[in-house]
Amino acid sequence: MARAWHLKSRPEGMPTADNFELKDVDLPPLGDGMIRIRNHWLSVDPYMRGRMNDAKSYVPPFQVGQPLEGGAVGEVVESKADGFAAGDQVVHMGGWRDEAVVPAQAARKLPDLGAEPQQFLGVLGTTGATAYFGLLDAASAKEGDIVFVSAAAGAVGSVAVQIAKAKGMTVIGSAGGAPKCDYVRSLGADQVMDYRAAPILKSLAGAAPEGIDVYFDNVGGDHLDAALALARNHARFAICGMIQGYNKREATSLKFAMRVIAARIRLQGFLVFDYQSRMEEFYRDMAGWLKSGAVKSRETVVEGLEQTPEAFLGLFRGANVGKMLVKL
Amino acid sequence: MARAWHLKSRPEGMPTADNFELKDVDLPPLGDGMIRIRNHWLSVDPYMRGRMNDAKSYVPPFQVGQPLEGGAVGEVVESKADGFAAGDQVVHMGGWRDEAVVPAQAARKLPDLGAEPQQFLGVLGTTGATAYFGLLDAASAKEGDIVFVSAAAGAVGSVAVQIAKAKGMTVIGSAGGAPKCDYVRSLGADQVMDYRAAPILKSLAGAAPEGIDVYFDNVGGDHLDAALALARNHARFAICGMIQGYNKREATSLKFAMRVIAARIRLQGFLVFDYQSRMEEFYRDMAGWLKSGAVKSRETVVEGLEQTPEAFLGLFRGANVGKMLVKL
Repeated sequence: MARAWHLKSRPEGMPTADNFELKDVDLPPLGDGMIRIRNHWLSVDPYMRGRMNDAKSYVPPFQVGQPLEGGAVGEVVESKADGFAAGDQVVHMGGWRDEAVVPAQAARKLPDLGAEPQQFLGVLGTTGATAYFGLLDAASAKEGDIVFVSAAAGAVGSVAVQIAKAKGMTVIGSAGGAPKCDYVRSLGADQVMDYRAAPILKSLAGAAPEGIDVYFDNVGGDHLDAALALARNHARFAICGMIQGYNKREATSLKFAMRVIAARIRLQGFLVFDYQSRMEEFYRDMAGWLKSGAVKSRETVVEGLEQTPEAFLGLFRGANVGKMLVKL
Repeated sequence: MARAWHLKSRPEGMPTADNFELKDVDLPPLGDGMIRIRNHWLSVDPYMRGRMNDAKSYVPPFQVGQPLEGGAVGEVVESKADGFAAGDQVVHMGGWRDEAVVPAQAARKLPDLGAEPQQFLGVLGTTGATAYFGLLDAASAKEGDIVFVSAAAGAVGSVAVQIAKAKGMTVIGSAGGAPKCDYVRSLGADQVMDYRAAPILKSLAGAAPEGIDVYFDNVGGDHLDAALALARNHARFAICGMIQGYNKREATSLKFAMRVIAARIRLQGFLVFDYQSRMEEFYRDMAGWLKSGAVKSRETVVEGLEQTPEAFLGLFRGANVGKMLVKL
């Protein structure tokens, strides 16, 4: 018997606690090639909001009445799969629950990088890999570039800021409220803008009088528009997320869309899943940065399976600094 | 003495004849390295509207009270420059007037490709090169791709359609009204949509049930949004123009902006001026297509210098099929 969070109803706009239900579930018998995992850490991520809509996207939508899924780190408690044994620590997608049975090929044993297990949901997980491949591949960011990172105190943004600094870029970050701005400053950002204190376009014009070469977009909307306004010639935008739009159906309104032409801007949408074959490269660089202190891991931890929806909802209130995790 | 169109006042929104004034001008004395050209053909292009605003862009704005500029083809009548002699046919930027004195390095002798002189303002000029480099470089379009071209009866769009067909792509074109749609069909487009007859999103969903790989954007606004809605994974958009937005200050409203992420779309703004070093490649391919009949040149010709503003204003009413030219 396990306990798993289910989608009780599809959210309209901003999700609420009423959209979720914690229920007992029977685990399937452990077939050949399967492993049973006791989860210790669960990940909640903004992209999960999209899966709660009944819409076709890059991952199938969650179904009403069915368990939710998400990243998790746990310990193998029973294995019928070659190469996996009880006691192995693994990262997998059977989250939002305390115990899961999954095919072994859907789990990855934590590589021995001297890191904490939960870091494989953060700086060493899809979160960190999103920042890494988004910045260096989708945006082709390089030494000397002036880089604007939105939601720079968030899970992905905070890692993007640190990678950019480690690679010799000038970094401008945006965040909401003084404590988050202080955190972004502590990561080494050259300029920090509080988007609650002034319109982001005005702030960015002040912070980047000569414009920006790269924009790492986690926000969309007014942040994307400001980046278009301030983009230098041949600027590259990595479009990672648009959290401003996840809970509303309003159109994105861009006053500066036409600058794409005059400044020859490249906007590149990307998903970290496309970089699975390059994870070793990421592990190598990120482990090095963690060891040297160039990248520091920061987590906001909520305790207890019962608190998982609350942790998820907090993402849209900006309740997290760094990676939001649930500890079981 | 020459006659040249001047910017009398900056247009607010849609330009009118009142914004232009034809005046006599003294030509400067012919210094060393200069040539005097009698123009035979003038080009009017949508991008010129942007230069009529007092705004920084990739080319300096036109100044009130000063002559306008634009592409032109003419004959050298006097030369103090090596390599240029009276009788040479040249293409240059001293348009919107009957006679011009320009530095020889700002003029290009028409290459001997067996083409009509005015074609160097159209299929063999920046218009054709815009279609060529936009489609094949900015959008990385290749054989087998499903390509959506907006304003497909326009100067650039009509060439883009024909290049795409010559390269073995499936082409969907949009245009306004039945005669233009017939013209696009005659260019070999597989599907043609009349954007005046139905919302473009609905039409595109019908014309491209499996989605599009490439979008060649001349329009922006609702056309760009429809392309975002229908884009397949890893689609590439060449952002060439957004004529919908040139005369109004409204923001571009995109309901489907977020699809950039899920479908990993690349939007690439571009300017043909960045491809000057690759013009030989363009001339070679385009001359071959003209010879084989794969690309046909089509022009809308207005007669007389006096009609230049009218020709220009016609661009925004959709008065042209193919390239809009003024014949002197």
